[in-house]
Amino acid sequence: MINKENFENYLSSIIQQDYIVEKSMNYSLLAKSKRLRPLLLLNLLKDFNVDETIGYPFGSSLEMVHTYSLIHDDLPAFDNDDYRRGKLTNHKAFDEQTAILAGDALLTYSFENLANSFYSDSLKVKLIKLLANYSGKDGMIKGQSLDKEFEGKQVSIDDLLQMDNLKTGKLITVALIGACYIANKEEYLNLFEQVGKKLGIAFQIQDDILDVTADVKQLGKSTSDKDNNKSTYVSLLSLNKAKDLVTTLLTEINDLLSDEKNHFDNTKELIAKLANRTW
Amino acid sequence: MINKENFENYLSSIIQQDYIVEKSMNYSLLAKSKRLRPLLLLNLLKDFNVDETIGYPFGSSLEMVHTYSLIHDDLPAFDNDDYRRGKLTNHKAFDEQTAILAGDALLTYSFENLANSFYSDSLKVKLIKLLANYSGKDGMIKGQSLDKEFEGKQVSIDDLLQMDNLKTGKLITVALIGACYIANKEEYLNLFEQVGKKLGIAFQIQDDILDVTADVKQLGKSTSDKDNNKSTYVSLLSLNKAKDLVTTLLTEINDLLSDEKNHFDNTKELIAKLANRTW
Repeated sequence: MINKENFENYLSSIIQQDYIVEKSMNYSLLAKSKRLRPLLLLNLLKDFNVDETIGYPFGSSLEMVHTYSLIHDDLPAFDNDDYRRGKLTNHKAFDEQTAILAGDALLTYSFENLANSFYSDSLKVKLIKLLANYSGKDGMIKGQSLDKEFEGKQVSIDDLLQMDNLKTGKLITVALIGACYIANKEEYLNLFEQVGKKLGIAFQIQDDILDVTADVKQLGKSTSDKDNNKSTYVSLLSLNKAKDLVTTLLTEINDLLSDEKNHFDNTKELIAKLANRTW
Repeated sequence: MINKENFENYLSSIIQQDYIVEKSMNYSLLAKSKRLRPLLLLNLLKDFNVDETIGYPFGSSLEMVHTYSLIHDDLPAFDNDDYRRGKLTNHKAFDEQTAILAGDALLTYSFENLANSFYSDSLKVKLIKLLANYSGKDGMIKGQSLDKEFEGKQVSIDDLLQMDNLKTGKLITVALIGACYIANKEEYLNLFEQVGKKLGIAFQIQDDILDVTADVKQLGKSTSDKDNNKSTYVSLLSLNKAKDLVTTLLTEINDLLSDEKNHFDNTKELIAKLANRTW
């Protein structure tokens, strides 16, 4: 299984520190993180027998989009969180204006970084379409909008599933679909759409479970859902049923990946590791 | 000279109104506007003997980036403005969270829109690099950061020129450079870098002049610079000297455009019209 050390070094070399917005971008981008999305991409590339460093430009653009979404989501107008990735949120360490600009700059640079990469023009265009579509108004942003709409309301499990598929699942799916494009394995697009959706939901339920079983220090971020009066899988299902649902989803993912000629050993190992995460 | 009616119709057909973020995107994107950047693009294309409708996808992406920057710049954490483009600012008409998401979504969709256009992959990549680089951390966003840094400080004319070249000049230059790429007239890149820079500054000085000579109703936006304790060309130079500087810059632009075999008649006519604007 590919681990994240070399990718971390690559990521830390991309953005200079010449002025405050660049410092603010790196403050959040380089904070301690699981790097779930880049690691899914790199491990799936390895399973496709592609040198994983080919995935670095797309992996870093994907992590920039994820990081911008965290910075904006932590703002006072959103969840108003104080801690993220083990340290003060961006707007607390800098200020609101700088945090908004750093998010905007990370989003913009994610596309510039891809456009400047060594990929062919045709692959660049495919990856830009994918990243923009899944993170934009029809994907992640729609999920963030639903999150706000649901705040303080009685919502159903189906509502939560729809929201989390957009808010979390879409960007996880980008990692897997992106690997299919980069490895030129488009026959797997449909399979990894399904895997990404299930994994995104499993990951979000785990977050809800950790919100009630772990503490801020362990998680490295504020646990604001209860304060913000948000429904969670735990509040709707009970803790044990939420845990069961995670197990079911991970088994389904394993089954999906086992039907294929390709054994996807690295991807499976990464997902198994995620199943036992405590942060 | 190309006017904006057909482009307005095109622009209004791009984004659906299926949920609140899309409504908020269109609220600001389709508000009354000079459409300066798209019009520069379309008129320069006409001067290059290219059907101007070829410029619509890039012109709309450019207008989306400009609009996102206005939405975020009006937020309470920035200029805290109440009026823009003749109506309430986005966060006043909706709320802060929706305004931040609508800005993020316009920025993201500007790249998706370009990636989905009829341009060749090679042209798409060139235009995405241009748009991202000139609007991002090394361009417009750097100008917005300087704007904040200069607030309440005694700054020099050179400081203002540097800031406005980044904050306003860069995106105006994108329109002109983009036309050179689309028309495959890259021998003019250097000329239009110079024109864009001068035009951006002239436009910004005009804004400062209108801030003290026009009223909110005429401008369609709040005149917050004095309230926010910002230095302007008028406060540093006097009203008459600021007016003289606009005239000098526009003459220099005309001279630059007159040295060439191509007469750039449509572009010159548009710029002459801008010289006498009252809003």
